[in-house]
Amino acid sequence: MILGFLRAKGPLPAVLALGLAWAAPALAEAPGKGGVASSFTLDNGMQVVVIPDHRAPVVTHMVWYKVGSADEVPGKSGIAHFFEHLMFKGTTNHKSGEFDQKVAEIGGNENAFTTYDYTAYHQTVPPSALETMMSFEADRMRNLVLTDDVIGPERDVVLEERRSRIENSPGSLLDEEVDATLYQNEPYRTPVIGWMHEIEQLNRTDAIAFYNQYYAPNNAILVVAGDVEPETVKALAEKTYGKVARGPDLPPRVRPMEPTHDTKRTVELRDERVTVPSFSKAWVVPSYQTAKDGEAEALDLLSEILGGGTLSRLNQSLVVEQGIASSAGAGFEGMMLGETSFTVYGAPRGEADLQQVEAAVDAEIRRIIKDGVTAEELEKAKDRFVRSTIFARDNQASMANIYGATLATGGTVADVEQWPDRIRAVTADQIKAVAAKYLNPDHSVAGYLLPAKPVEK
Amino acid sequence: MILGFLRAKGPLPAVLALGLAWAAPALAEAPGKGGVASSFTLDNGMQVVVIPDHRAPVVTHMVWYKVGSADEVPGKSGIAHFFEHLMFKGTTNHKSGEFDQKVAEIGGNENAFTTYDYTAYHQTVPPSALETMMSFEADRMRNLVLTDDVIGPERDVVLEERRSRIENSPGSLLDEEVDATLYQNEPYRTPVIGWMHEIEQLNRTDAIAFYNQYYAPNNAILVVAGDVEPETVKALAEKTYGKVARGPDLPPRVRPMEPTHDTKRTVELRDERVTVPSFSKAWVVPSYQTAKDGEAEALDLLSEILGGGTLSRLNQSLVVEQGIASSAGAGFEGMMLGETSFTVYGAPRGEADLQQVEAAVDAEIRRIIKDGVTAEELEKAKDRFVRSTIFARDNQASMANIYGATLATGGTVADVEQWPDRIRAVTADQIKAVAAKYLNPDHSVAGYLLPAKPVEK
Repeated sequence: MILGFLRAKGPLPAVLALGLAWAAPALAEAPGKGGVASSFTLDNGMQVVVIPDHRAPVVTHMVWYKVGSADEVPGKSGIAHFFEHLMFKGTTNHKSGEFDQKVAEIGGNENAFTTYDYTAYHQTVPPSALETMMSFEADRMRNLVLTDDVIGPERDVVLEERRSRIENSPGSLLDEEVDATLYQNEPYRTPVIGWMHEIEQLNRTDAIAFYNQYYAPNNAILVVAGDVEPETVKALAEKTYGKVARGPDLPPRVRPMEPTHDTKRTVELRDERVTVPSFSKAWVVPSYQTAKDGEAEALDLLSEILGGGTLSRLNQSLVVEQGIASSAGAGFEGMMLGETSFTVYGAPRGEADLQQVEAAVDAEIRRIIKDGVTAEELEKAKDRFVRSTIFARDNQASMANIYGATLATGGTVADVEQWPDRIRAVTADQIKAVAAKYLNPDHSVAGYLLPAKPVEK
Repeated sequence: MILGFLRAKGPLPAVLALGLAWAAPALAEAPGKGGVASSFTLDNGMQVVVIPDHRAPVVTHMVWYKVGSADEVPGKSGIAHFFEHLMFKGTTNHKSGEFDQKVAEIGGNENAFTTYDYTAYHQTVPPSALETMMSFEADRMRNLVLTDDVIGPERDVVLEERRSRIENSPGSLLDEEVDATLYQNEPYRTPVIGWMHEIEQLNRTDAIAFYNQYYAPNNAILVVAGDVEPETVKALAEKTYGKVARGPDLPPRVRPMEPTHDTKRTVELRDERVTVPSFSKAWVVPSYQTAKDGEAEALDLLSEILGGGTLSRLNQSLVVEQGIASSAGAGFEGMMLGETSFTVYGAPRGEADLQQVEAAVDAEIRRIIKDGVTAEELEKAKDRFVRSTIFARDNQASMANIYGATLATGGTVADVEQWPDRIRAVTADQIKAVAAKYLNPDHSVAGYLLPAKPVEK
């Protein structure tokens, strides 16, 4: 369920915390759609996307590297995220902390995040500071000083991050093992932060090899959104990033497909820190990158109708009408390079037990498989998607995120722009078809988070 | 549970079909122990082990490559086993089938097998034919003709093999998903034969890359057992294999360790072809290669005492005394390069149901964890191990197998020879300790093979 790990420097834009897929129509719904984004490529292979937005004197500057945890070699889990930490250390031109301090001085904010498929760095600053940001970012693309003095203490920071986020959280531990069970073949079975015993072994040699392989302009995407013109960005990009030499040519990114799943699987974690039980149930389904014939769009709308918020079937039925659940919903992470997952979840309330909640969730899924969805709720779901774009559009970083994530997972600028039309084209029959095809109750992976003492699940 | 896939050319020696670990004392218990095996290395890096055995005018000739399915790159599952098939095709010096025919003409037999950690080829022939065997084997180490004409039809053979062995067998399908669930990080999660959709994509480029990387004298072990002297083998080996050029230096073989398992997991397969339900339960445990302080030896004896045959606790309790099970036992595959698995299993009989059998198996495990094993049954278990060697010793191929498998999984000739003493040194406390440490009932992976109609498990 974890999309990515954020550096502990401050909150990410809400749009990211909520997952990217739902926000994808944002841009193309913006005024001036069709020509809103300019894109071009520098001579050294760096892709550039510019999204002018003159409502406020602010600019969001992001660099996306086409490498995430799923690109790690066996035994080296966590290196992508660990490297994100190292990017905040000193370079041959700037000492550690200087970049952070510069952003703070000008009243900007910055962050970085690592996911299965990409790693991104961003700053939001006044337009006058854009060149400085580019210059710092281009510098750390190649000039990091990676000594043992730098590596050792930062590895301890990451280990502590894992302890506090995962080991101290029974729900996170369960999520990790559910993912490791769900994906029999795909690298998404490995947590983005890495396995503890492998993070402990990461060293300078690993870091340098990773840096030299993946951190180069021909493996990066620059996204600039805000109060700036494409021509200006192009000139600045050539002056800064354009000076960085190409890195090695990389082979195509491999995301092995899942074999057929023929079994029903369960993963149960009992822990004394759990007071309220809960469950999730997941299936491997196509992503926007692997899907054909609008299946990903249909899965997005199925997720919205089944469990996408207070108006969803699961919430209305289990929480509002039956009153047996404190929460119930569904999730679909479509913006992935390989096949992805569709998830439902719930937790009991009052006298209800977990088994009852799971049965009620299963019943709602079976109802869609059998009877489909109504034309009215499909239209409303599409409307909710469109409305959500109004929120996303108000956030410059969201716009930059949508383009960056799409390009970093194998999509194109055109994909972003055509997305709303593809969503609007989804029919009720397609929703029913993907539910029947993918949400087979006999071939699911269920996770149960339970208190230490045996209770009915 | 699957150790390896055999070529469909005839049965393997029983010792292999039963797993190798139990047979490992065989050699060192043979007459003349201590000096029984000679070993040396050719100039091109090929290891050689010779085990003279003059009881009959027969010689077993084996070549072991230190590559198995667990060395495959993501997305290319099945290439190691597929390549084993290709090794029976034509070379620049001999047309396809010529080697087979030669073995048949002289009344010998031959086979080959692929496992997670190694691939081996062997022939049993009169000593006079040894040079011819070496010559053919050295030839196909480098001179295979790998054209699309060869690759395509053989891939169809392998696909058909997978269909008949796996897709047509609910128990095998379940075993695959149990393994894919059990191993969260290790490559043993992928079946040796490969995933169907990936075998379908294997091509000439993959085959040639695999051949050039792994099939070379410096990645191979020659084992010759039988009516022959080390000096003779050495001379013949230099004359044949000695002429083959070294291949590339290979990096150390990586078998990532498992993270801590904090959950209880189940995998359930329902299929109309299942008439009698059954279950298995597995844990990741150390192998001989990864274990410390005699834990692997203790696990071997624990497996023997708990479920190693008719005299084992599980059989005596569930099958003989309670009469609730048609079968019940335990298994441990110690001879692996990475961490391995310990398994228990059972099937109900008469009025008993699967749940009852599982509870009775769990009870026997808990009894050992709580009370340990008796000195008497430990001695008897050690004796059974020794007796089993008498059978193994009678089979030349078994002897060759033990050395080959040990060396191919990172062990040494000394490991083989010292093994019986290490087994004899295991104490009852050690057995209890490994049971308590590794067979945690709350952190296991259980597989249930069930009939199509819902029944109580």
